[in-house]
Amino acid sequence: MGRVFVGDGYCHHVSSDFPALYRLGIVGAGQIARMTHQAAVKLGITPRLLAEESDDSAALAAPDALYGHPDSLAAFADTCEVVTFEHERIDLGLLRRLEDSGCIIRPGTRTVAAAFDKMHQRRVLLNRGFPVPVFAEVRSPDDLIDFSTVFDWPVVLKSVRAGRPGEKGVWIVENSQEAMAVINENADRELMAENFQPIVKELVVIVVRRPGGNARCYPVTEVVQVDGVAREMRSPASIGHQVATEAKDLAVRIANELDAVGVLAVELFLTTDGLVVNELAARPHNAGHHTIEASPTSQFENHVRAVLDLPLGPTWLLAPAAVTVNIMGGFDGVNPADNLPEALSVEGVQVHLYGKRPLPGRKLGHVTALADDIDLARDMARRAEAALEGRRPW
Amino acid sequence: MGRVFVGDGYCHHVSSDFPALYRLGIVGAGQIARMTHQAAVKLGITPRLLAEESDDSAALAAPDALYGHPDSLAAFADTCEVVTFEHERIDLGLLRRLEDSGCIIRPGTRTVAAAFDKMHQRRVLLNRGFPVPVFAEVRSPDDLIDFSTVFDWPVVLKSVRAGRPGEKGVWIVENSQEAMAVINENADRELMAENFQPIVKELVVIVVRRPGGNARCYPVTEVVQVDGVAREMRSPASIGHQVATEAKDLAVRIANELDAVGVLAVELFLTTDGLVVNELAARPHNAGHHTIEASPTSQFENHVRAVLDLPLGPTWLLAPAAVTVNIMGGFDGVNPADNLPEALSVEGVQVHLYGKRPLPGRKLGHVTALADDIDLARDMARRAEAALEGRRPW
Repeated sequence: MGRVFVGDGYCHHVSSDFPALYRLGIVGAGQIARMTHQAAVKLGITPRLLAEESDDSAALAAPDALYGHPDSLAAFADTCEVVTFEHERIDLGLLRRLEDSGCIIRPGTRTVAAAFDKMHQRRVLLNRGFPVPVFAEVRSPDDLIDFSTVFDWPVVLKSVRAGRPGEKGVWIVENSQEAMAVINENADRELMAENFQPIVKELVVIVVRRPGGNARCYPVTEVVQVDGVAREMRSPASIGHQVATEAKDLAVRIANELDAVGVLAVELFLTTDGLVVNELAARPHNAGHHTIEASPTSQFENHVRAVLDLPLGPTWLLAPAAVTVNIMGGFDGVNPADNLPEALSVEGVQVHLYGKRPLPGRKLGHVTALADDIDLARDMARRAEAALEGRRPW
Repeated sequence: MGRVFVGDGYCHHVSSDFPALYRLGIVGAGQIARMTHQAAVKLGITPRLLAEESDDSAALAAPDALYGHPDSLAAFADTCEVVTFEHERIDLGLLRRLEDSGCIIRPGTRTVAAAFDKMHQRRVLLNRGFPVPVFAEVRSPDDLIDFSTVFDWPVVLKSVRAGRPGEKGVWIVENSQEAMAVINENADRELMAENFQPIVKELVVIVVRRPGGNARCYPVTEVVQVDGVAREMRSPASIGHQVATEAKDLAVRIANELDAVGVLAVELFLTTDGLVVNELAARPHNAGHHTIEASPTSQFENHVRAVLDLPLGPTWLLAPAAVTVNIMGGFDGVNPADNLPEALSVEGVQVHLYGKRPLPGRKLGHVTALADDIDLARDMARRAEAALEGRRPW
C-alpha cells in the first residue's frame, strides 16, 4: 500500500478506524518507536507513527504510519489525543505553538528543549544547582582559546543541538590545532566547550514520570563505550548503594525540575569528584532496553503509561544481573539477520533485531542476557553478539 | 489505505518491501496472530497476515495485512516462504494441494487434520495406543442410543470439526431427550459421541517442535473452566512430578506421531483412571499466554522459531507460579479497555488487551500474574480482572 504523506498543514489520511481510546501518536519510527509501539499494542492501544521513510524500523512493523518531516507535526497532532517522541530533533517553536493551541505533547516543550539544546540544558541545570561540567559557548575560535587557557586541555567540544542517530556530536580535543579542525569541519553547527571530566564510570538512570509528578526509577545502568559508541549496558551498575541512591535522587529531581512526562534518561558521569550530569534524553533510552525482559514493566510500557497518564508499573530487576549489547552494522557487509540461527542457539539470550538495512556503524539490534551475575550475563550476550556478527568461536 | 483483497488465485498486492529473509505468513488475524506477530517482530521478522476483517485483532496492530477468506490461501502462500496458522479452520484438500506443490506449510496437513477433524484425530491416536475416550460417529439418533446403551449417560456430544472462537462444540447430555435436542439444533454439523470422563483436572501441555523432531515442553498448565469456558490458567499445574512427566511425555509422543511443527497444545483430562487426551490444537494456545512473561521464550516466539526451523529457546518458568485469567466481554456492555487505569493500578499484573470490540462472551484480553505461589498469583490476577470488568472492590 505505500506511503501516506502529511505536510503543509494538511493531513492526507485520517483513517476512521483509528481507535478512539488513547489515540497516541509517536513522532519518529526508529527502533525506539518500534519497541514503544509493541508495548502499547500489549495494552490494546495502537499508536500511530509519524515516519520519515517506509523502511524506518517501526514503520516496517506497524500499520498505517504517516509519512512526513517531523516539522509536519501539526497535521499529525490533529489526528492524536496525545503526541510523544522517539527523538528530540523537533522544531521547538512549532512544538510551543502546538502546546499553546491545546495539543497534549508529552514530554512537553520544557523537557524537549533541555534535551535538544545542550547550552539551554546546562544553564537550566546550573541555575538549579545540579552538578554539570564547566561550559561555555564557542562562537569563535577565540572563545575556545579563552576556555582552554582557564581550564586547560583536553577540552570537550559538543554540538549544541541533538543530532541524528550515529551522527558525531562530541569531540575530545587535546590542543588548539585539533580544536580548530573540529570548528572548521562543523562551521554550520553551533558548538560549546566543556571541561574534561575524570570519568570513573558512565551511568544512566531511567526515570519515568507521570503528569503531576508520580515517578519511578529503574536500577542504575552502567554503559561501556567502545570507540566512542555505547556497546554494552550492565544493570545494576557495580556502584555502591550510596552512589546509586544519589544518582536516582538526582534523576528524579531533574525530571521534576523539567516537569518531564514519560521516560527521562539521565546520563551521568561518575567522576573522581562525584556525579556530574552528562546528557539528558527525553524518551526511552538504549540503556533501558534490558527492561523488556529484566523488569516487570519495560521502559517502553512505562513510557506509554506515563504519557497517557496511566498508573506506572514496577521497575525492579527480575534477575541479579542483566547485560545488553548493541548489535552494530560492520564494515564487512555482514547482515546480523543472516546469522539469526547461530544467535538463537546461544541458550537463553534474548535477540532483538530492528529490521534495518545493515549499514556500517548503524544500530541494527541488541541482545540481552539475564544471569546470576554480570560476568555470566555478559559472557552470554557477547556470545550471541559474536554469532550475529558472524565471528567464531563464540 | 484500507484493505487489500486476495482471492480467485490472484494476489492483488505483493509489496516489494516485504523483507526477503524469513517471509512468514500467518493465516488468521485474531489475538493468537497478534501475539505471534509481536514475537516475530522482536526477531526482526515482519510476518504477513491473512485477515478476514479490518478490525481483526492482529490486523489492527500489523502492517500490510491481506484480506480474504482462509480458502484464498493459495494466493497468500505465493507471497510467503513459510505459512503457519492461528486456527485449524482450513480446507484440508486445499492445504494438501499446496503442500504437494511445494509450499512450506507448518504445521503440515497431517497435524492440522488431527486438530481440525476430531474423528480422524481419535482414530489416529487410538491406532497408536494413546489414551482417548471411547468414541463413535453419530450419523443418526440411533447411533447415539446404541452408544448410550453400552456406555450409559451422560454422553459427551461433540462437533467433529473445529469451530470458530466462542462457538459451542461440546455438549454433555444426560438423557436421550437432551441428546435429540442437540442433534436437531446441529443438523448441519457432523457430530460424534464420547463416554463421559471422571475429570479430576484439565491440563494442557504446550509442546513446541522443529522440523526433524527437536522438541521442548513448557511446564504443564492447569485450566479452570467457569460455565464451560476456560477462565483461569495456572502454571505449573498442582499435580505430582510423575503425572507431569507422564503428561509431557504423552504430548511429545503425540507431536512426534503427527510430525507436528510449531506449537502443539495437547489438552488432557486427568481422570480417576489416569491421563486421557481431550483435544489437540496445532497453534499457540490460551494455556500458554503466561509464557510471554513467565518464560525466557514465549510460546509465540518458540512457534515462530520452530516454523522457521530456528533453534528453540528455554521453556522453564521464571517464577514459582503464574496465573492467567481471560478477560471476557460481559452482557453488561462494559468495555474492559475503559477500565485500563484501574487494572494497571493493580501492582505488577500484566495486562493484555486485544483491541477487539466488546461483545458478550468474546475473549477481549488476558491478565497474567507471577508470584511465589499460585494463590497469591491468582489473587493478583483476579483483582486486575475485576478492575477491567468494572467490579469493585477488587
